[in-house]
Amino acid sequence: MMNKKAIVLLSGGIDSSTTLAIAKDLGFEIYAISFNYGQRHRTELRAAEKVAKHLGAQEHLILDVSLDKIGGSALTDEITVPKDRGNHEIGTGIPVTYVPARNIVFLSLALGWAEVIGARDIFIGANVVDYSGYPDCRPEFIFAFEKMANLGTKAGVEGERFTIHAPLSNLTKAQIIKRGTQLGVDYSLTLSCYDPTEQGKACGHCDSCLLRKKGFKEAGIPDPTIYYNEN
Amino acid sequence: MMNKKAIVLLSGGIDSSTTLAIAKDLGFEIYAISFNYGQRHRTELRAAEKVAKHLGAQEHLILDVSLDKIGGSALTDEITVPKDRGNHEIGTGIPVTYVPARNIVFLSLALGWAEVIGARDIFIGANVVDYSGYPDCRPEFIFAFEKMANLGTKAGVEGERFTIHAPLSNLTKAQIIKRGTQLGVDYSLTLSCYDPTEQGKACGHCDSCLLRKKGFKEAGIPDPTIYYNEN
Repeated sequence: MMNKKAIVLLSGGIDSSTTLAIAKDLGFEIYAISFNYGQRHRTELRAAEKVAKHLGAQEHLILDVSLDKIGGSALTDEITVPKDRGNHEIGTGIPVTYVPARNIVFLSLALGWAEVIGARDIFIGANVVDYSGYPDCRPEFIFAFEKMANLGTKAGVEGERFTIHAPLSNLTKAQIIKRGTQLGVDYSLTLSCYDPTEQGKACGHCDSCLLRKKGFKEAGIPDPTIYYNEN
Repeated sequence: MMNKKAIVLLSGGIDSSTTLAIAKDLGFEIYAISFNYGQRHRTELRAAEKVAKHLGAQEHLILDVSLDKIGGSALTDEITVPKDRGNHEIGTGIPVTYVPARNIVFLSLALGWAEVIGARDIFIGANVVDYSGYPDCRPEFIFAFEKMANLGTKAGVEGERFTIHAPLSNLTKAQIIKRGTQLGVDYSLTLSCYDPTEQGKACGHCDSCLLRKKGFKEAGIPDPTIYYNEN
């Protein structure tokens, strides 16, 4: 019998929300996990909660992990989030919003929870098309993580293989938005912005907002996002 | 030039304290990291603080990560810690004190900190001789983690290789104690017990205490531990 539980890493953005919808569509019972890691924009946790509820997650666990004590990123430190960068800049190099080892830490915590609840499938919205800059989103990393997970856990060594799924890996933002829309994702609940207001309004100018706008435009789907400083 | 900073995972027990002393003896500047993960015996963090100070760590970071919300272990849940088990029992299977993905989570967080402070060497007191039951202590796991780390981090993909050192891997507890004693480790500061008092006294009967006692005996070195229920 297929093991039906799956853990989905849920940040509350477009990618992770779509990933949750895809996992559900594959027939998995969804256990969403989010992280309170000292991110400057905690409103993303509220978005994650709304999405988990909207898409019918069985459970939504929010774990605390003090990545802000480690620092080194514009998302946890007082480093300025870059605004209005061109496409050539966004696609080049590793951005200041890179949080050292973030996906490694998040996948590790998801793995621990998976082992406890008996889930053997973990979904992550990692994507390499728009954001080639994040090393911890690349398929070769995902594969190496999966291998390590199967060597370093009780379930793994006992032969119950963990699988790390990254279903968005090779999709563009527009393709992701189209797929999610087909699956009924309400993107007005999601939050992509690196610099949102407390109320969850988006800046419209950070890399993440720019990619989001471009994605909706290319998908030919109206962008439901409320931007706070459009002019 | 050799990169002189090293991160050492420090729980405050015999193995991690000895590992710290070994890393220092190799000439590294020590950055110790410990975790407040909801363990029932928080006195181990006080032991870690004492050891870090005693062995001259440059910095000692204590990170919060709420593994207790995940559960699944006698060290974070209200599962009874087994007492007075025989050697054949201790060496067999994966014990209830196994915390799902714990070393994976801890190494991931150490990796994030390493990347930020520019350390490329991470030391862990993983050991397979006395505790064959923990999958996340085995050399094949350590090697897989290292490989994954070099694929999933900015420093790794930019060619600055991370190395995960597990210098105790094949040593018995007695050999570890002898080595640490040579290096000047004051084991009276360390805490091994799974069920200590608030004051840091050890039970003398859990697997960890039994292995510790056996180690000192076999090493021919007096055990400085204060046990609370010896009779």
